[in-house]
Amino acid sequence: MVKKMQWQVERPQSIESVLAALRFDERGLIPAIAQQHDSGEVLMLAWMSADSLRQTLSSGRVCYWSRSRAALWRKGESSGHVQQLVDFRWDCDADCLLLLVEQTGPACHTNRRSCFYNALRGGAPTVITEPETGA
Amino acid sequence: MVKKMQWQVERPQSIESVLAALRFDERGLIPAIAQQHDSGEVLMLAWMSADSLRQTLSSGRVCYWSRSRAALWRKGESSGHVQQLVDFRWDCDADCLLLLVEQTGPACHTNRRSCFYNALRGGAPTVITEPETGA
Repeated sequence: MVKKMQWQVERPQSIESVLAALRFDERGLIPAIAQQHDSGEVLMLAWMSADSLRQTLSSGRVCYWSRSRAALWRKGESSGHVQQLVDFRWDCDADCLLLLVEQTGPACHTNRRSCFYNALRGGAPTVITEPETGA
Repeated sequence: MVKKMQWQVERPQSIESVLAALRFDERGLIPAIAQQHDSGEVLMLAWMSADSLRQTLSSGRVCYWSRSRAALWRKGESSGHVQQLVDFRWDCDADCLLLLVEQTGPACHTNRRSCFYNALRGGAPTVITEPETGA
């Protein structure tokens, strides 16, 4: 069961106080790591703009910035594989986010739970997880 | 006990095959997430150059690229808070790394285990973990 997010009931000023604390890069973006809140599995890394962050914190549903499409990317909008925000953290340098999420279905566009499915095995690049079936 | 890393005994060609598979950005860097291999805790995010990656994979000790110092950053060289590589993964787009590590001591320069110690509590930016003592 996903606990209620405190910032969903907070005033816009709370969100702006977070935005003011963060350091966006020269493109106006900040990297965000998505981690499944209970298993600890690292699911993906994507980028956020100030606007995608506002959408995420005000709705409790994760919204990234798609660099390839140069547009807001409401995660799961077409696939249904949404990420519900459980906790929101940022690092010592305020230039990276850690999103603890409840991931519905696979996080990866290849239909794998995590995007990090490539590894070195026996010295060779190797795919270590298969796409989920029936997802 | 940290298991033996396969790539420590691999030939340089194995490392170059990984480098060829990865997509470095316009600065020649790729983001790397460090995760404690057994607890799943996300410790930090830093950046790697091709050379820092070669050092990491050939030695089994994590070496980043420091953007502020524009130099190789052998993690823990002065502090002793080294990261031993346990597994090496990369994502579907080949533009992000996930390092499963055995972290000695705190990963963060603030002497906290993880760099991600800031969170929203009651709508306000809040420090949720304290520095380790005696480290």
